[in-house]
Amino acid sequence: MWSSAASVLIVAAWCLREGASHVTSGSGVEAAAGPEDRLACGLGDSPPATRQDTTERLARLRQQMVVANITAYIIIHGDDHQSLFLAERDERRQYVSGFSGAGDAVVTLERAALWTDSRYYIQADEQLDCNWLLMKTGFITTPTIAQWLAAELQAGDSVSSDPRIATFSQWSSWQAHFNSYNISLKLYTQNLVDEIWGTEESRPDYSNQSISILSTDYTGATWQQKLGELRREMAAQQVDVLVLTMLDEVAWVLNLRGAENRYTPLFRSYLLVAADWSTLFLPAERHAPQLSAYLLADLEDSSQAVRIRPYEDIWTTLAEVGTNYSRVWFPSAYSYARGASFFAVQTVPNEKRYFATSPVLLKKAIKNEVEIRAMRNGHLKDAVALCQMLATLEDDIENEKRDWDELSVAMEVTKLRMAQEGCVGPSFGTISAFGAHSSMAHYQPDHNSNIAVTRASLFMLDSGGQYPGCTTDVTRTMHYGTPTPLQIDIYTRLLIGCIDLVSTVFPAGSTMGQLEVVLRRPLYALGLDYGHGSTHGIGSFLGVHEAFNTVYQEHFFGSQEPGYYRPNEFGMRLENIVMVVKANFSDVTHDSSTYLTFEPVTFVPYETKLIDLTKMSSEQIAWLNRYHEQTRLLVGPELLRQGHTSTHQWLLRKTRPVTRDSTASGAGVRGASYNIIMLIIVSSLLELVQ
Amino acid sequence: MWSSAASVLIVAAWCLREGASHVTSGSGVEAAAGPEDRLACGLGDSPPATRQDTTERLARLRQQMVVANITAYIIIHGDDHQSLFLAERDERRQYVSGFSGAGDAVVTLERAALWTDSRYYIQADEQLDCNWLLMKTGFITTPTIAQWLAAELQAGDSVSSDPRIATFSQWSSWQAHFNSYNISLKLYTQNLVDEIWGTEESRPDYSNQSISILSTDYTGATWQQKLGELRREMAAQQVDVLVLTMLDEVAWVLNLRGAENRYTPLFRSYLLVAADWSTLFLPAERHAPQLSAYLLADLEDSSQAVRIRPYEDIWTTLAEVGTNYSRVWFPSAYSYARGASFFAVQTVPNEKRYFATSPVLLKKAIKNEVEIRAMRNGHLKDAVALCQMLATLEDDIENEKRDWDELSVAMEVTKLRMAQEGCVGPSFGTISAFGAHSSMAHYQPDHNSNIAVTRASLFMLDSGGQYPGCTTDVTRTMHYGTPTPLQIDIYTRLLIGCIDLVSTVFPAGSTMGQLEVVLRRPLYALGLDYGHGSTHGIGSFLGVHEAFNTVYQEHFFGSQEPGYYRPNEFGMRLENIVMVVKANFSDVTHDSSTYLTFEPVTFVPYETKLIDLTKMSSEQIAWLNRYHEQTRLLVGPELLRQGHTSTHQWLLRKTRPVTRDSTASGAGVRGASYNIIMLIIVSSLLELVQ
Repeated sequence: MWSSAASVLIVAAWCLREGASHVTSGSGVEAAAGPEDRLACGLGDSPPATRQDTTERLARLRQQMVVANITAYIIIHGDDHQSLFLAERDERRQYVSGFSGAGDAVVTLERAALWTDSRYYIQADEQLDCNWLLMKTGFITTPTIAQWLAAELQAGDSVSSDPRIATFSQWSSWQAHFNSYNISLKLYTQNLVDEIWGTEESRPDYSNQSISILSTDYTGATWQQKLGELRREMAAQQVDVLVLTMLDEVAWVLNLRGAENRYTPLFRSYLLVAADWSTLFLPAERHAPQLSAYLLADLEDSSQAVRIRPYEDIWTTLAEVGTNYSRVWFPSAYSYARGASFFAVQTVPNEKRYFATSPVLLKKAIKNEVEIRAMRNGHLKDAVALCQMLATLEDDIENEKRDWDELSVAMEVTKLRMAQEGCVGPSFGTISAFGAHSSMAHYQPDHNSNIAVTRASLFMLDSGGQYPGCTTDVTRTMHYGTPTPLQIDIYTRLLIGCIDLVSTVFPAGSTMGQLEVVLRRPLYALGLDYGHGSTHGIGSFLGVHEAFNTVYQEHFFGSQEPGYYRPNEFGMRLENIVMVVKANFSDVTHDSSTYLTFEPVTFVPYETKLIDLTKMSSEQIAWLNRYHEQTRLLVGPELLRQGHTSTHQWLLRKTRPVTRDSTASGAGVRGASYNIIMLIIVSSLLELVQ
Repeated sequence: MWSSAASVLIVAAWCLREGASHVTSGSGVEAAAGPEDRLACGLGDSPPATRQDTTERLARLRQQMVVANITAYIIIHGDDHQSLFLAERDERRQYVSGFSGAGDAVVTLERAALWTDSRYYIQADEQLDCNWLLMKTGFITTPTIAQWLAAELQAGDSVSSDPRIATFSQWSSWQAHFNSYNISLKLYTQNLVDEIWGTEESRPDYSNQSISILSTDYTGATWQQKLGELRREMAAQQVDVLVLTMLDEVAWVLNLRGAENRYTPLFRSYLLVAADWSTLFLPAERHAPQLSAYLLADLEDSSQAVRIRPYEDIWTTLAEVGTNYSRVWFPSAYSYARGASFFAVQTVPNEKRYFATSPVLLKKAIKNEVEIRAMRNGHLKDAVALCQMLATLEDDIENEKRDWDELSVAMEVTKLRMAQEGCVGPSFGTISAFGAHSSMAHYQPDHNSNIAVTRASLFMLDSGGQYPGCTTDVTRTMHYGTPTPLQIDIYTRLLIGCIDLVSTVFPAGSTMGQLEVVLRRPLYALGLDYGHGSTHGIGSFLGVHEAFNTVYQEHFFGSQEPGYYRPNEFGMRLENIVMVVKANFSDVTHDSSTYLTFEPVTFVPYETKLIDLTKMSSEQIAWLNRYHEQTRLLVGPELLRQGHTSTHQWLLRKTRPVTRDSTASGAGVRGASYNIIMLIIVSSLLELVQ
């Protein structure tokens, strides 16, 4: 799965690349439409069925703004923990705007505007009613929120936003910007959307599923060991207290999992760690005696315990920490982690704040032996589900046995995953995209867009699951009819890129930025490229998107995912999760430095129908055959154990070894038969002669 | 040719790579020897013949220091223009220390120390007498000059250095450092080495060769056009006056060349450019009526003229500029350019200084059509000379006709180059390295180190020349006997890296940092690497080392030079100059962005004896054959024109097309004969049967 955050950073890294790569990610949008230029908002236009009337909600929100004496309210798409996937209850921006994608909104007393990137241009135009301006980010002409507000407002006006959702760096940059326009950024702690939504019965509650303990059979380290490591790191940085605000970091440190956020097994919480105490802040309804027991919460020696306190107490405790200690560590932004909230940071005096990448972020990116085993096992179960899906689709569509559409595939693949032992659900919204839809890198079908999956074009399926100790994310592209030569050419190039990159040996200390050209090079040769990033880290039963722009170390897990998107025609992507491993050398000539390479963790067959073997080197073909053999040997027995014999048959067929050209092996056969025929002739003649 | 400056920056870019890459560049030195641990400086040791007794010079320098009330004097290896190659007259650090390599020296009233990098550890130990401490940079334990002085000196002491040689940033960082130790950095404008050396008759003078005009037949643009471009850039940056202090920048802007600096056709000068005037500061002995005429120096309209003033007047004029104008552009450091001197910058008030990369540096990196032609022509002449050398060596050594040693080859290749029309000399000191010497990436033979070039090992030759409109730099590695399988394997991998990189298509905006893995990847696969950079820009009849860490643009010229150095055994490097060109695509599928690729400019055969074709893909072999064919077609006629028929024979032999294995084509023949034999048998049998 590809995300825009990766894209933005990678685009920055590949800076100055010509062409509007920010709008080439398959959206097919070629020019910036002005924010006034909304779909079906003319006189007499009838609005799409996808729209919700936000007039009344906006009026109520503006009423609250007047009461609070605020001229403009910024509604960040986020939660108090800067999560990537929100709980439904935290979808405030969606509640106000009706738009369900990613992006922030701003409501002034007169206008309302939503900022979103190219993945969502079409969806936003369909979902936002005509109260809303659509601000398409990625165009130089599109103002930022701060720029737009500076033009909309007047000196003396007041802006606000939820300081628990906004990050410290975001808030600070607004502050500087608005100051120069004599506009004040008001610290108003009550969320104004909660004021109008909080009382509604229809507002979803957080999941009431209790927090579960993830056994060391999956984590390989106790929370005590992890706290010990963090405390050593804190000592090295001469820090008194570490403030963990990201939910996946708290979950990782304490080996606990919840079910509050979409696609991610998290629970609302904060964790403070000091040298001789640590405290978990948890909503009252999540407290449980077995949790206290597990965390030794009542132990007298506070250095051996994790105390549990009410979730809301974090603010008073943080203020006490700010008074009693001298150096407090707030995680800064890194990869997908956005850094601590403004509200958290401002409770501690300026001179006591220490900003640096969270030590948890870097530690959890490197998996231990137990986590590696869990990741491998989970990926095999995941492969069983995906192979079942692909085998069924191939049989049903190629042989016209049953109709499938994008939505039914998305639902079925989730059902198949959920049937796997331990699977708790998908790790992100399934990208199930047929034909022209596949040219949108991030397309997710809904009831309006849903189309049939047929033999007429390419079908791209990007999906993943959550298993105990394992998060998966895999993309395959298929064709159930006859692919075009261009489609075959490009699929082959994506595969060659994958093979070349995964088999690259590189010195420890390299980054993806240094290796990425190996993945893109075959596509470049045609004058083609893709506008998104090529990799992201992945968690062990945590986020599907974790830190990716790290210096590679042994046992880092991440995706490798090249793609190609031909606007309005077709798109394709191939994605495996791989692990960074030490490179082994067969002889003794190598030098004393550490060299690393990659090892696949995802094992799902590629589509040989889409591969032109004459374009591949013998080494690349050998790699493909080895990968398919491993897939057969690893996934095959699990398919049989689960009784999926027809999928097993499919697997055997899809992983059969290939040679440069079946014509070549044919030629080999022909060569052999030619010799045999000649021998027969010679023998017969000899017989005749005798 | 590889340089340590490139290495340092590339090592920084490939940061955190494990292993002491700073000492792996073939020096074979594995551990830091303390500065006290000097070669042959024990009681009763007899010093190497390479040493010069510096006792008396040091005593005279210290006398000057006492007079000037200075406790420590830093002798930067440089000149007033921060040049990479100095005029002999400016080799002050060599005069004081006896050491002829690169590195800075410090003399206190008690001690003397020299800092140098791994390329020169051995040479410095041999050349410095026992008055000197040897500070090996690249080891964490080696202090910097500032750190060492802070430890050596006491509060109240005074340090100085020539403020015209030290850059502004260097001086500023010393100042901050020494301030914190209460040591003063004295602005003493008289160079103390000049005080003791200036009067000596043996001090070399600057070359008295007059300045020559480089025709627009070589430059493709007049100085008027270039000044116009600079003035547009100055207007864009809202700058009043541009201060050009680098000699190659002045030479490029005015299309003038001199002969003062080693290996580079430069002349001492400064150039100030304002919107309506510009002034060249030139030593009186370089003034000439035709120069005034060429620069329209006496034209009434100063905006159309370049006035000429005495070299020393730069300081008073700069001070006037500082008074009369409000924004003055001083070039900052970039790639090999070190930035303006402290003395130049300090003449202008702080608030009027504008620091940015010199606009000349970036403009001269991109060649125009005329410069491209001159570069191509010069490279063909250069190839003639190098082919003559290689053909002779191969014949003489393989057939034991004549003895060669490293020095005689270095002298001969220069002689052959000088015989080419227009060649004014080598573009750097020839690296002529046999056997174990080739494991030192930067080895240059002298009378002490010189060894015979024989059939017993590898011979690496890295050399270049200066031609009107063209600077060359090429490395080939040869073996006149039987190479080992490892040598063949590695040579093949270096060549594969070169082929893969030069044929890589990449989006405009990419940098070498993003592409470099393509060059190193084949070596990485064996667990091997090299400790130096892989590229540097190159001038048109200017510096052999120009900016290299730029974002690639069409018509940038630079080297591609992978190497491998096995300490004390052997080393090899392959280096071509290539040009960045637009990629052309045969069909219309490509997207609208600009894609670039490389085109070789150097045409000299590779050594097929060192190539294992079975390790190369058909595309790589096809590239090699195409390159050799181009070499034959381009260099061949020039060899014949010049009457070098035996070298032409050699060229035909060396550029003969190769196939995956001569055995493979043999197998083809065998296959055919097998069929023929079978047919003969069958026919005979049939005859018998009939």
